[in-house]
Amino acid sequence: MTSDSKRFDVVGIGNAIVDVLVQAEEAFLDDHGLHKGTMALVDESQAERLYASVGPGLETSGGSAANTLAGIAQLGGRAAFIGRVRDDQLGAIFSHDIRSVGATYTTPPAGSGPSTARCLILVTPDAQRTMCTYLGASVNLDPADLDLDLVAQAKVLYLEGYLWDSDEAKQAFLAAAEVARRHGGQVALSLSDAFCVDRHRQSFQELVDGHVDLLFANEMEITSLYEANSFEDAAEQVRGRCRVAALTRSEAGSLVLSGDQSIAIAPFRLGNLVDTTGAGDLYAAGFLHGYTRGDSLERCGQLGSLCAGEVVTQLGPRPQASLPELVKRNLG
Amino acid sequence: MTSDSKRFDVVGIGNAIVDVLVQAEEAFLDDHGLHKGTMALVDESQAERLYASVGPGLETSGGSAANTLAGIAQLGGRAAFIGRVRDDQLGAIFSHDIRSVGATYTTPPAGSGPSTARCLILVTPDAQRTMCTYLGASVNLDPADLDLDLVAQAKVLYLEGYLWDSDEAKQAFLAAAEVARRHGGQVALSLSDAFCVDRHRQSFQELVDGHVDLLFANEMEITSLYEANSFEDAAEQVRGRCRVAALTRSEAGSLVLSGDQSIAIAPFRLGNLVDTTGAGDLYAAGFLHGYTRGDSLERCGQLGSLCAGEVVTQLGPRPQASLPELVKRNLG
Repeated sequence: MTSDSKRFDVVGIGNAIVDVLVQAEEAFLDDHGLHKGTMALVDESQAERLYASVGPGLETSGGSAANTLAGIAQLGGRAAFIGRVRDDQLGAIFSHDIRSVGATYTTPPAGSGPSTARCLILVTPDAQRTMCTYLGASVNLDPADLDLDLVAQAKVLYLEGYLWDSDEAKQAFLAAAEVARRHGGQVALSLSDAFCVDRHRQSFQELVDGHVDLLFANEMEITSLYEANSFEDAAEQVRGRCRVAALTRSEAGSLVLSGDQSIAIAPFRLGNLVDTTGAGDLYAAGFLHGYTRGDSLERCGQLGSLCAGEVVTQLGPRPQASLPELVKRNLG
Repeated sequence: MTSDSKRFDVVGIGNAIVDVLVQAEEAFLDDHGLHKGTMALVDESQAERLYASVGPGLETSGGSAANTLAGIAQLGGRAAFIGRVRDDQLGAIFSHDIRSVGATYTTPPAGSGPSTARCLILVTPDAQRTMCTYLGASVNLDPADLDLDLVAQAKVLYLEGYLWDSDEAKQAFLAAAEVARRHGGQVALSLSDAFCVDRHRQSFQELVDGHVDLLFANEMEITSLYEANSFEDAAEQVRGRCRVAALTRSEAGSLVLSGDQSIAIAPFRLGNLVDTTGAGDLYAAGFLHGYTRGDSLERCGQLGSLCAGEVVTQLGPRPQASLPELVKRNLG
């Protein structure tokens, strides 16, 4: 795509979250009724109780869309993030981290109300992550907070499906999609999580049909969206409903659909699998970085695959390695 | 050593700190006048300025003695930590992490005053760490805060040299050493940092001669303590001044001195060197765990070497791997 008069390649809206990464055994998930690989919402007291029962953590900035926008900035793209923290210590960490990679982040922190959102991420020995999110201050994002000037300046507006769990955020999201479209931008959506899709299936289906140009989903999410019997079935159902659908399948790589095209993208295996946190977010980062530079869909998928392949070799959802060097080394 | 009537194997006093780990280039250290491998104290505004100039961080509980006590608890030892945080989010993280590995931590958080201490740790591509510490609430530890009942219950009282940078903490430290001795406990000291030794040389020399049973120091620290020309020279100077001196030399292993004995301990190389943060702290953890169980000095040194060898293969000063399994696998 072109439209180089735009100030930003990608502007993202999402929950502004600090992650707490903790090693956990499978039995812990069972004992606490948690489903491996998914995200559950918890209130503050549940979050405190759960935290009290786990081992030591590593804290790092997270949030699905925020991870994607940070990745795009690290790749050299012009990225901005919209999402709300509280004016507390975790909020300061979140704000520092996303700005320090070069992303624009201007949402004012809340001066009162719930604390900055936290996500307890349980990493099991198989490197899978299971998440419990306390949304805190991030649900206070309402249309009045939204910097629509930023949104109007985006080639692509990127939205995370998790926002659907807050009515205010959902309204902000739809208003932003409208503005982006009106200014010639495209709208991208990540389905975020299979349970999230389950909670908002019809709403997501309408959104994909009516508002979305680029859809990101993993195998569980896309099959949940269409209550399909197989990945292939789900892929055929989504085909043609949006301009591009990028469907990720973990170690099986990804499939990019556009019009009649089906492009299979191989996965990158760059080292031992340590923690899958951020894999989908970084796939979207690589893909959107290529997309907004006008790369072929195949290369967009390869960039996504590469960034995802890197982030799963480390703890946490923000790559510690240099992404531009990674691209140069692996994709020339 | 025996005295199994004691409630704790080791009670430690130190600064209660949350670490912020950041990747940095050598040039960054030069630009900011930082000396690689050492610790510099900064005030709150310097800390903020420096933080604003670095990339994204990983937050994790730290503090030299706190890392050691957490390590002892992870190894299965009975450990307690004394040190002060503020009642803020970082203080909650610190408190959770040290309790979650089984250490006793009862120092009440400060309800007002400076925020919880933070240490910005710059990890250069050679895996060396350079630290800038804002002591915040941790300097408010005074004798009145000290739980002397805990101290009286320790086989070994462990003190970090960094405490010498605060007059109140130093007084608390000396009072505690007195109590420990009176109740038949031994006193261990870590010299912490060569610049710290430089700031307090005479005071540390008197302390070693008059109060310390076990001394932990690395090569730079012990040569600084005696302003010696070589490691060998420094080792001969410290011999006989305390019951045991354990001197660490990075990839050259360590040397344990006791009476006429000199026991050379080989290093453990368990994987790629990622980050040396916590190496000295975990050496002390392994050593003291063996020591309080009555192991031979050779095995104490090997346990120290092994724990240090593990922590340098990961980011941050608290081992994510199971230390008891590590010991079983490597030392039987």
